[in-house]
Amino acid sequence: MDNIYDLIIIGAGPAGLAASIYASRYGVGHVILGQVLGGQISETHEIDNYPGLENMTGFDFAQKWGAHAQKYGAEIKPVRVDSIMKDGDVFVLALGNGETLRAKAVLLATGTRRRQLALAGEKAFLGHGVSYCATCDGFFYKSKTVAVVGGADSAASAAIYLGNICQKVYLIYRGQELRCEPYWQREIEKNEKIEMILKTNVVEILGGEKLEKVRLDKTYKGKKELMIDGLFIEAGSEPNIDFAKKLELAVNKKGYIQIEKNCATSTEGVWAAGDITDGSDNFRQVITAASEGAIAARSIFHWLKAR
Amino acid sequence: MDNIYDLIIIGAGPAGLAASIYASRYGVGHVILGQVLGGQISETHEIDNYPGLENMTGFDFAQKWGAHAQKYGAEIKPVRVDSIMKDGDVFVLALGNGETLRAKAVLLATGTRRRQLALAGEKAFLGHGVSYCATCDGFFYKSKTVAVVGGADSAASAAIYLGNICQKVYLIYRGQELRCEPYWQREIEKNEKIEMILKTNVVEILGGEKLEKVRLDKTYKGKKELMIDGLFIEAGSEPNIDFAKKLELAVNKKGYIQIEKNCATSTEGVWAAGDITDGSDNFRQVITAASEGAIAARSIFHWLKAR
Repeated sequence: MDNIYDLIIIGAGPAGLAASIYASRYGVGHVILGQVLGGQISETHEIDNYPGLENMTGFDFAQKWGAHAQKYGAEIKPVRVDSIMKDGDVFVLALGNGETLRAKAVLLATGTRRRQLALAGEKAFLGHGVSYCATCDGFFYKSKTVAVVGGADSAASAAIYLGNICQKVYLIYRGQELRCEPYWQREIEKNEKIEMILKTNVVEILGGEKLEKVRLDKTYKGKKELMIDGLFIEAGSEPNIDFAKKLELAVNKKGYIQIEKNCATSTEGVWAAGDITDGSDNFRQVITAASEGAIAARSIFHWLKAR
Repeated sequence: MDNIYDLIIIGAGPAGLAASIYASRYGVGHVILGQVLGGQISETHEIDNYPGLENMTGFDFAQKWGAHAQKYGAEIKPVRVDSIMKDGDVFVLALGNGETLRAKAVLLATGTRRRQLALAGEKAFLGHGVSYCATCDGFFYKSKTVAVVGGADSAASAAIYLGNICQKVYLIYRGQELRCEPYWQREIEKNEKIEMILKTNVVEILGGEKLEKVRLDKTYKGKKELMIDGLFIEAGSEPNIDFAKKLELAVNKKGYIQIEKNCATSTEGVWAAGDITDGSDNFRQVITAASEGAIAARSIFHWLKAR
């Protein structure tokens, strides 16, 4: 392998594609490795919080971004990265197709995966009533009745957020009490729109074309079925970082990669951007991911120039 | 005045409009005060580095963002803010039209102004060969000949950036030597595409529909006229912060407002986002400004909730 890329971007979601656009404009040769164009955004029912692009499906959104990056000549390889290690000054990437690639700099932009609950109906109703992101999809349930599953900060903040939009929010949690911050606890207790259903699990999601109700594992107000328009599963997320273990990057308590202001990680030559990082005040959105991608690309350009 | 806004956003550029979209989605009542919809972006010839929105004029871009914010009910008042002061827990804003507004929280998103040189033709050729932003407009001069005016870091980095794209870059500076960082100095010296013209001023910009040449105040290679396709004026920027002096915000050496990760300033109740801040690794772009706006809006939402 004589061919060494200046930069390999791992991940074809908003962070990776934004970084690619900026890298191209800076003249930094690179390839994007990503199995799913758009990343998690491609699964999102509808996006309306990315300024300037109103009301798009996640699929259309991803296509638009992919086209924008490719217009500048970006090559997007739909492959998995199995591992990445540093060999002297060069990074060696083993791909799922058996190929090996080398680069002077790498940008990790592989985002997170939402923890799923493997409920009956969970997959079938994804985008038709089931969501993993209140901030992304909450607005589409304006004045409707929804339920949030979970008891940690993400579930609590989702319930509060939805309480500003929806008519009614059930917060369903298996534990005896929520395990979120006291601040959230108080907010939920004094919010008349939020009703807690504790020591209870959702066991099945039911409906026709759209979600209509969920079945609980114990009765609530005399019934085992709860009529709702939307179910937000907030069982947490985890960064997709396993392939990069050998780089021994510094991470925060929750496993997210710690980045500097310029999106550099603790390992020279490695940058990270998007949901996988602890940047942007831990606010994981398309707009923040794209911003980090742009910042990283500029930093990488300067770093490559200085070598 | 009994009416106190939860939030007043000052500035109708990318940071302010993004903050407005997020604030609306969080249910935070607010008004946007901004004389120019889109802010500086409205003056940009063409934008192609905001992922997902290809090749738009600055004007169309601004209209699109304004419509997006207004869809959520945002009110945009095209007025100037003359001053802002804190009165107990409330901020009091004096507007250019004589009105007074009050708010619990304020977001400063008034960006920067480019230093202009007041050259003959500078205004007339803006967007037709004259630009104040190499990163924004450089790509439109691919394989062409351009000149950069200035000798500090911004001019040097603009010249390097343009060297990656253009066929030829003149760097014109009145001083005897550049006053940029040594790193930039070395980069410029070894870059064959960049030609320095020192101890020289541009005195006039000439052309027909588009810029064709500039006139210098002394001869260069036997001529006082230099044929170029684009002129990048990099005389620096300064934050639009005068109206907020009474808030006594902490600023960095260059006068930009220092912000925390959540875009809070040193004064309780005041947030800042976009070009006016020292955030995003000092990379001032539409995408970074919008990201800061979103982060600020979330932080303001939580702060208002906690009061």
